[in-house]
Amino acid sequence: MIDVCLLGTGGTIPLPRRRLSATLVRVGGDLVLLDCGEGTQVALRERGWGLRRLRPILITHTHADHVLGLPGLLLSLGFSGRGSEEPLTIYGPPPLEKVLGGLLVVESRLPYPLRIVTLSTSKVFPLEGTGGIEASCTGVEHDVPCLAYSLSVPRAPRFNAERAHALGLPVTQWGQLQSGQSVQFAGRTIEPGEVLGPNRRGLRLVLVTDATLTPSIVEFVRAGGEGADLLIAEGMYGSEEDKPTRWESLHMTFAEAATLARDGDARRLWLTHYGPSLDDPSAHLGQATTVFPATVLGQDGMTQTLGFDE
Amino acid sequence: MIDVCLLGTGGTIPLPRRRLSATLVRVGGDLVLLDCGEGTQVALRERGWGLRRLRPILITHTHADHVLGLPGLLLSLGFSGRGSEEPLTIYGPPPLEKVLGGLLVVESRLPYPLRIVTLSTSKVFPLEGTGGIEASCTGVEHDVPCLAYSLSVPRAPRFNAERAHALGLPVTQWGQLQSGQSVQFAGRTIEPGEVLGPNRRGLRLVLVTDATLTPSIVEFVRAGGEGADLLIAEGMYGSEEDKPTRWESLHMTFAEAATLARDGDARRLWLTHYGPSLDDPSAHLGQATTVFPATVLGQDGMTQTLGFDE
Repeated sequence: MIDVCLLGTGGTIPLPRRRLSATLVRVGGDLVLLDCGEGTQVALRERGWGLRRLRPILITHTHADHVLGLPGLLLSLGFSGRGSEEPLTIYGPPPLEKVLGGLLVVESRLPYPLRIVTLSTSKVFPLEGTGGIEASCTGVEHDVPCLAYSLSVPRAPRFNAERAHALGLPVTQWGQLQSGQSVQFAGRTIEPGEVLGPNRRGLRLVLVTDATLTPSIVEFVRAGGEGADLLIAEGMYGSEEDKPTRWESLHMTFAEAATLARDGDARRLWLTHYGPSLDDPSAHLGQATTVFPATVLGQDGMTQTLGFDE
Repeated sequence: MIDVCLLGTGGTIPLPRRRLSATLVRVGGDLVLLDCGEGTQVALRERGWGLRRLRPILITHTHADHVLGLPGLLLSLGFSGRGSEEPLTIYGPPPLEKVLGGLLVVESRLPYPLRIVTLSTSKVFPLEGTGGIEASCTGVEHDVPCLAYSLSVPRAPRFNAERAHALGLPVTQWGQLQSGQSVQFAGRTIEPGEVLGPNRRGLRLVLVTDATLTPSIVEFVRAGGEGADLLIAEGMYGSEEDKPTRWESLHMTFAEAATLARDGDARRLWLTHYGPSLDDPSAHLGQATTVFPATVLGQDGMTQTLGFDE
């Protein structure tokens, strides 16, 4: 299971009671941060899950409202005692390295290793230090390089204890089989498949922000039918008529986010990244629920635990 | 008169309910900002004095906790409609220009002119757009170039209406004399001194943060006997034994700030820039009031109006 928290739900400009977009995911005690607008480090402290086990940070794009919290957070991690044995990896699209180089003008020497991984194409990669989370990303249409991310949390197959007993296997050898390795017992090799049930569905979380609704992004959410347990998507505008002409094609409305959830086989949708002129998101919720009933309006600090299917 | 607001009172790391150091001064409707840590733009919005009439920003030094709010604030000013007719000046010590260049990697094209003035020595200068505030700065001892600032708000001499009536001066010519210019009337030159009373004491506000207590900084606060109506000074440590050896000589304790207020002829002292380990500043207040009774513990949002002497 995982815990998901919306640290901030604002787009463009931070407002009182609406921080800039950032999403925190906790798996075991490990934390993955997606985007880091100004003020994210305080939201992290308020959440109370600690800073020490912050593992990778995933950045969707280098617009100010998604990255300006990075220098302060990186410095604070150092002040909090993160040392040379605790590297931090930041993933994101270009020009991530240039932007971090600029922002870290205030402190170029961090007390821990910083690894910057620029992602310029669709990719699947393991998230180090998170107990097996697999991330994937794909490019979305925005006015700068921008990525959607998914996090897939694997679930171990059920271990068939009756079968293991019947084979006479000592309990001390169960762990090796559970982790997918064969063992030698009573003169023969026992394969994991003999004591493990079929593969079980894990959890899949998808984040799409600052994006045009396109068929390829629907397919990314759908993932060939796997879908998403939770889709977190921007609702920059309440409705189509709120879109300023200048940015018309760069951000999604509530209805577009809901369409993405429906067509992408998501189980539920959280809206986030509200435009600063969107005073009362609840006034527009119907625009989303008409298309996709399981839509929830995100708000700062909102947290939910997602469990595996029973 | 002026209004003074502590937007944030934290040093080094922002905490829930304790933003990083920033001080806002309002004169008429015009705003002067001193320092701009991460989160300052939200504190400005919460204060509710608007952003539009933000005039110069004065930066004490380029450490992260004093400048990381600048890029977000500068961008938000642009989003709020500040245009080509509304330049913004930022004053501060080197390497101010380099640091701003780095931080503005997220947006190099602001819709209004940005003027950066690097101050590398003691200086007295008018603050544009503030109705006559005169600023002065002096270098303080820190591990990077760092400045203390004073803001002096002038007070016009009293206009002697009886005397003006006795001279037969039409009311339409009073304004010119009030502003210090002579007028021609009844065949002779009337000098301002004939209708104005003696010079009157204005208001003086001094900010000293991230500094060692030295004789020269005491003299800056004292200003040859003029003193300060309000001294805002850092109280990074509650007491001497809280000073870590490494930074021992770089920051002031409560007692040192109080000594600066007392020896600098300040009328009152606000403590700010509390170190992150200073959980309860009130537990240490006695360390300051023993030395300087008119000490007040600053807290986020604290606002006071300073009036001219009666």
